[in-house]
Amino acid sequence: MKETNHSSRGQEQGARPSRLPVSVSGHITLLTDFGSSDYYVGAVKGVILTVNPAAQLIDITHQIPPQDIEEAAFTLLASYRSFQRGTIHLAVVDPGVGSARRAILAKAGDYYFVGPDNGIFSYIFDREPNRRIINITAQEYFRQPVSTTFHGRDVFAPVAAELSRGVSIESFGQEIRDEVRLRPLSPDLTKKGKLKGRIIHIDHFGNCVTNLDRQSFNGLEEQRVVLVVNGKKTQSVQSSYAGAISKHKLFAIWGSAGFLEVSAQSRSAAKLLKAKRGDQVAVEFGS
Amino acid sequence: MKETNHSSRGQEQGARPSRLPVSVSGHITLLTDFGSSDYYVGAVKGVILTVNPAAQLIDITHQIPPQDIEEAAFTLLASYRSFQRGTIHLAVVDPGVGSARRAILAKAGDYYFVGPDNGIFSYIFDREPNRRIINITAQEYFRQPVSTTFHGRDVFAPVAAELSRGVSIESFGQEIRDEVRLRPLSPDLTKKGKLKGRIIHIDHFGNCVTNLDRQSFNGLEEQRVVLVVNGKKTQSVQSSYAGAISKHKLFAIWGSAGFLEVSAQSRSAAKLLKAKRGDQVAVEFGS
Amino acid sequence: MKETNHSSRGQEQGARPSRLPVSVSGHITLLTDFGSSDYYVGAVKGVILTVNPAAQLIDITHQIPPQDIEEAAFTLLASYRSFQRGTIHLAVVDPGVGSARRAILAKAGDYYFVGPDNGIFSYIFDREPNRRIINITAQEYFRQPVSTTFHGRDVFAPVAAELSRGVSIESFGQEIRDEVRLRPLSPDLTKKGKLKGRIIHIDHFGNCVTNLDRQSFNGLEEQRVVLVVNGKKTQSVQSSYAGAISKHKLFAIWGSAGFLEVSAQSRSAAKLLKAKRGDQVAVEFGS
Repeated sequence: MKETNHSSRGQEQGARPSRLPVSVSGHITLLTDFGSSDYYVGAVKGVILTVNPAAQLIDITHQIPPQDIEEAAFTLLASYRSFQRGTIHLAVVDPGVGSARRAILAKAGDYYFVGPDNGIFSYIFDREPNRRIINITAQEYFRQPVSTTFHGRDVFAPVAAELSRGVSIESFGQEIRDEVRLRPLSPDLTKKGKLKGRIIHIDHFGNCVTNLDRQSFNGLEEQRVVLVVNGKKTQSVQSSYAGAISKHKLFAIWGSAGFLEVSAQSRSAAKLLKAKRGDQVAVEFGS
Repeated sequence: MKETNHSSRGQEQGARPSRLPVSVSGHITLLTDFGSSDYYVGAVKGVILTVNPAAQLIDITHQIPPQDIEEAAFTLLASYRSFQRGTIHLAVVDPGVGSARRAILAKAGDYYFVGPDNGIFSYIFDREPNRRIINITAQEYFRQPVSTTFHGRDVFAPVAAELSRGVSIESFGQEIRDEVRLRPLSPDLTKKGKLKGRIIHIDHFGNCVTNLDRQSFNGLEEQRVVLVVNGKKTQSVQSSYAGAISKHKLFAIWGSAGFLEVSAQSRSAAKLLKAKRGDQVAVEFGS
Repeated sequence: MKETNHSSRGQEQGARPSRLPVSVSGHITLLTDFGSSDYYVGAVKGVILTVNPAAQLIDITHQIPPQDIEEAAFTLLASYRSFQRGTIHLAVVDPGVGSARRAILAKAGDYYFVGPDNGIFSYIFDREPNRRIINITAQEYFRQPVSTTFHGRDVFAPVAAELSRGVSIESFGQEIRDEVRLRPLSPDLTKKGKLKGRIIHIDHFGNCVTNLDRQSFNGLEEQRVVLVVNGKKTQSVQSSYAGAISKHKLFAIWGSAGFLEVSAQSRSAAKLLKAKRGDQVAVEFGS
C-alpha cells in the first residue's frame, strides 16, 4: 500500500538554498487522520495557541482515512498553493508514532511543512526543487513529557507554533537529504508507448481523480482523450459538469487540482464505475 | 426538486437603495456541500486569507447534501442573523458551476451574500426587502486561471475576500432584479381554508422542522395546534424538550429557527415518523 | 446511563477562592453534540462574535453522541489543559434545555467553563480543587428572546462572550456548591482488593480508553499489567503503537490522556474486542 523509497532525487535536488527568503505568515493549516469526534484536533490547536496565541489555524481536513499517507499526500498537494506564501502546513498521518521514524520540517517553494518523515510531503517535494528538509531533534521545543502515542500534540504542534513565531528552521535540527518518498504520481508508459494512469483520489461527489495531468499529454490532443476505467469508457473531455451531453454518461473533465477526472452529471461516477483508488485508467483518443 | 422561477417579486422589491450603509466586518461565513474529507474547503479558505489575511472565517456547515440548494437556503436563513451586522455569507452549492448560471453578490438587510444565482439566497431575499443584487462579472477580482469546476475557490472566495477588504459592491458588476428564486417557504392554504405545511428540514437530532411559523397562525390559538405527519398526530405544543408529557409521544414545539418542529423526547422524531423533507404536515387544533 | 448525584465533595471543596487570578485569554473552545450538518454551531459562533468580535474560537468537537454527557465530560477532561491558561471552555450537551436545570459558569484551576449543570464538567471538578461555580441567572447578558430549545445560542454563547470581554464571573449570578456530578472516573476495587476498570471512551482509531491511570497502580509494577476485556487478554504494556510485537495481538499502552488503552496495530481494537463504552476491564499482572 505504502510504497516508500529513499529516492535519489532527494539526494540530487534537496539542498539548494532558497533564493528568496520566505517569512512565516502566522497561518497554520492542519491536515490529519484524527477524525472529528475525539479531542485530538482540539488538543493540537490548544498547544499551538498556547505557544503562539496570534496564530491563525485553518483546517484542511481531519477525515483522511486512518493511516492513509497517500491520501494525505494528494490532499496536501491539491491545496497547499491556495494559501498565502509563508503558510505553515502541519500534516499528521503517523502510523509510526513513537517508533524510530523521524520528524521533519521542510521549506519547499514558498511554504513550510511540518510532520512525520513517512512520505506525506513527497508529492510536494517532487514539485518544488527549491527545498530544505530538517530532521526535527531539538527537544527543547517539544511539549513535555512527550507521549509515545500523540506526537501531533507533543512534537509537531509546538514546532509549527515556534516556527510561526519566527524561530529559524535551522534551530530545529540538521538538514537531511534522504527523506522518505512515496511512489511518484506520474502515470506509467506501456511497452507500446501508451499512457497508463490510475485513480489517485475519489472525492465527496464521487468524481474520480486520475494522475493524468496536462504534462502527461505533452504534444497530444488532450481534448480528444477518452478514459477507460473498469471496462467503461467516458465521453471525451467536457468543459463543465453542467455541460455534459447526457445525464447517463460518464465524461472526463479537467479538475481543479490539475488532473483529469472521471465524472457524471449529478451522480457519483465512482458508484457507476465501482471504482476505488488505485484502479487503472487506460487512455484512448476519440475522433 | 429544485423549483426555481424568476419571480416578479424580485422585480418589484429588488432595488431600493439601503438607507443605512452597512460596512463589512471582516467576518466571513462559509456554507457549502463540499463535505469535510476533501481539500475543497481548505482551498477556499486559503484563497480568502491570501487576499485578506485578517479575515475571520466561520464555518456554518459543509455537510449540505450534494447539490441540495433548498437545504442550503434553509440553513442560511436559520443562521444569518446570528452574526454581526456586516458579516459576509459565502454560500456555494453550485450544480451549475462552469455553465451560464450567474454569480451574484447581494446586500440584503444588514448582511452581505456571495454565491451562485440558483436560489440559494432566496429565502433571505423573501425576508429582506431592503436589498441590492449584483451580477458578478469583474474578472479582475477572480483567481486566475478560473477553473470550470471550482468557482468556490476561483470566483466566490476572492470576491468575498475583496468585499471584506472594503471594495464596494458596485465594483463587481451590474445590479440585477431577475435573480433565481426557489418556491417560497410559506405554507399553503387548502380550498377549505386549512393550513397545509411541509417538512423543510430534519436536524441532527431527528427534529422535523416545518414551514409553519408564527405568522402562519395569525389570529389563531397557536398553542392548541396539533400536527399530523404520515398519519401520526403530535401532542399539542410543548414548551421544552424535557417537559414533554410522555417519552413515547411526539409533540410539537417552537424551534430555534422560528418554525414549529415535530419532536420526541430523547429520540429521533424523524425515525418514529419515517419522515423525510418535503413530507406534508396537516394542521389541526386540539381542545 | 447518566448516573448523576449531588455530591458532598462539591460541598467540601467547592468554594476556595483561587489564589492566582486568571485572566481570560480571548480563546473560547466549543464542545457540543450538535453535529456538523445543521446551523447550530454556526449560530453559536455568530452570537459569540457579535458580542466579542475579537474572540478566537476553537472547536474541540461537535460529534459527541446526542445527549451523551459522559462522553462530553471525558473529551473535555482529556483536552482542557492543552489550551492556554485563561481559555474559556464552552460545552453544550444539554438534554434538559428549557427545563429547570441550571446554567453554570465555573473557574476551575486555570480555566473557565460555561455550560449546563448536568455533570458535564464534573471530571474536571474532581481534578481541580481550586474552583468556584456560579449559577448563571443574569438575564441581561442573554440573547433575547431566549428560546426554550437552544440555550447554546441564547444563554451560553453570550455569557461566554461577555466573560471573554472581561465581565467578572460574579456578575452572572450566585455561587453554588451543590452542582450535579457524574459517577467518578476512578476504577473500583473488588472485595479481594483487585482493580476493576471500565472502558470510558473508544476513539476514532478503535483504541479503547480505560479509566485506569497511573495513580490506580500506585506501588504496583504498571509495566507488567495485562488487561482483560470481554474474555480477551492484551499483551503487556507496549511503549508505542508501531512497536507492538505482533500485528494480530491486542496490547495495552499508556494513552495521551493519561489512561491505559487497549490497542491493536493498524487495526481497531474495539472491533476485535466487540467492545463498547462501559465494558468491564479486569487487571492482571504478567511475568
